[in-house]
Amino acid sequence: MSLLVVGSMGLDTIETPFGRVEDVIGGTAIYCGVAASYFADVRLVGVVGEDFPQAEIAFLRSRNIDLEGLEIKAGESFRWGGKYHLDLNSRDTLFTHLNVFETFQPVIPEKYCDTPFVFLGNIGPDLQLDVLKQVRKPQFVALDTMNYWIERTPAALSRVLERIDVLLVNDSEARMLAREPNLVKAAKLIRKMGPRIIIIKKGEHGAVMVSDGTFFWAPAYPLENAFDPTGAGDTFAGGFMGYLAKMGKVDDDTLRQAVVYGSIFASFAVEKFSLDRIRDLHEEEIRQRFTEFQAMTRFIQPWV
Amino acid sequence: MSLLVVGSMGLDTIETPFGRVEDVIGGTAIYCGVAASYFADVRLVGVVGEDFPQAEIAFLRSRNIDLEGLEIKAGESFRWGGKYHLDLNSRDTLFTHLNVFETFQPVIPEKYCDTPFVFLGNIGPDLQLDVLKQVRKPQFVALDTMNYWIERTPAALSRVLERIDVLLVNDSEARMLAREPNLVKAAKLIRKMGPRIIIIKKGEHGAVMVSDGTFFWAPAYPLENAFDPTGAGDTFAGGFMGYLAKMGKVDDDTLRQAVVYGSIFASFAVEKFSLDRIRDLHEEEIRQRFTEFQAMTRFIQPWV
Repeated sequence: MSLLVVGSMGLDTIETPFGRVEDVIGGTAIYCGVAASYFADVRLVGVVGEDFPQAEIAFLRSRNIDLEGLEIKAGESFRWGGKYHLDLNSRDTLFTHLNVFETFQPVIPEKYCDTPFVFLGNIGPDLQLDVLKQVRKPQFVALDTMNYWIERTPAALSRVLERIDVLLVNDSEARMLAREPNLVKAAKLIRKMGPRIIIIKKGEHGAVMVSDGTFFWAPAYPLENAFDPTGAGDTFAGGFMGYLAKMGKVDDDTLRQAVVYGSIFASFAVEKFSLDRIRDLHEEEIRQRFTEFQAMTRFIQPWV
Repeated sequence: MSLLVVGSMGLDTIETPFGRVEDVIGGTAIYCGVAASYFADVRLVGVVGEDFPQAEIAFLRSRNIDLEGLEIKAGESFRWGGKYHLDLNSRDTLFTHLNVFETFQPVIPEKYCDTPFVFLGNIGPDLQLDVLKQVRKPQFVALDTMNYWIERTPAALSRVLERIDVLLVNDSEARMLAREPNLVKAAKLIRKMGPRIIIIKKGEHGAVMVSDGTFFWAPAYPLENAFDPTGAGDTFAGGFMGYLAKMGKVDDDTLRQAVVYGSIFASFAVEKFSLDRIRDLHEEEIRQRFTEFQAMTRFIQPWV
């Protein structure tokens, strides 16, 4: 089945302890869309400026991503610059130039309107709601948000939370949204706001999925050379939603596999700058890492 | 098989957001010994003052813990006071009175000297070495340490690291000991210092075991009512070492089960003040939690 991805697209300038790159492609829709393209037909909605490299648009097409929803607007693309600290767990934003993204108003092409799986990237909740008004009864909707919207537009966020199936947030966002320091309680409180499933992304500590009374813990892949964490969360969302769209079902077993694929794709993404590691993964590499995740979590019940 | 436990014993005064208790039993040897007593014959070496409650000594005996190595000395017991912050992840030490623990010099009774499993709690590395000189070729030695010894007595710590099988530390201690921010690299560097196995305890994020090229991730139990984290790490060590001593073997499958039991016992310990939750656990409760750990980590390979 197909997956609709709506979110930012732009050019990033990134400094890590290991190097620096300038104007490389990034943004939610790109990280998520490319990861999901390994599993499903991806339909992308976003905006870039006329300066966005043609070669990168060709790359997205080469991943079989449908770009009818990509708007190319007069002006410059969204640009973000960030510098990571030594342990890669924290970063400073050096600049944010919204440019053409400032007036982004997602328009869903008619042929996208029946897409069964929808990922609403981290944009204003009003825009996320607007997308949901344009699509016809999707089977499964995932949403990402952040502290900015939790603090500034709680009413709109609350309306969109009522209409989604899964919320993807990090641990501090979950605590802030629920106003509850205990993550287990926080997840339960957020479920009462609407989404049946909460996925809490914890970076190097892995991810936890909370659904009807059940918990699923997926580790993070133990990387010796984490290189650039930019886009890890969006890539997680892409692996997760792409796999669900491929399978066309959202039962517990499939959701757990999707979380593992999310963690696997995030681990690949952080191994190189930008999308460099996930431009052309081989099926064998992905399968190999899945097998490693099994080996890392396996244990045997001691009684019979 | 039996397990020798050497470490602090004393009386704690603990404040959490949920309440306050005064002069309750605590210390490494007590938390570890009591947890391990669910699996194996525990032999305890420690020191308390004459003020240590007789009822608590009777309690330790009721858990079948051998107290021939317990010294009751003229003077007051070790006392520690701490206050936890709202999220329970950080605390302030309010006071530390070493009292009779200040001159603790572990003397291993002759009948303990052939104990096959040994846990050296967090005391000075010179004292830990001294214990290893008194025991005869133990099968498996585990050691806990902390930033204080890593910074102040690196040479002695390095000598004891050469003689142990497993090191239990938290993530910041692992980074400090290896002088390496990446935990995967840090674990590998520490293995070169001696121990074949490193267990990194990450509190609410679970624990990771690193051995010959393999990783094992155990989650933390998702507690809605974490109450008092005091002793969680020592209780982890008790569940881990107690289970290994019970099984009398340290192959990969058994080590993984031992890590899960460590995490299970730590989760029980933090549910109430002091040792209150682990004084009298039923086998069914422990087994139930083991089953929940399996349910939390289970996922199916998607291909055949």
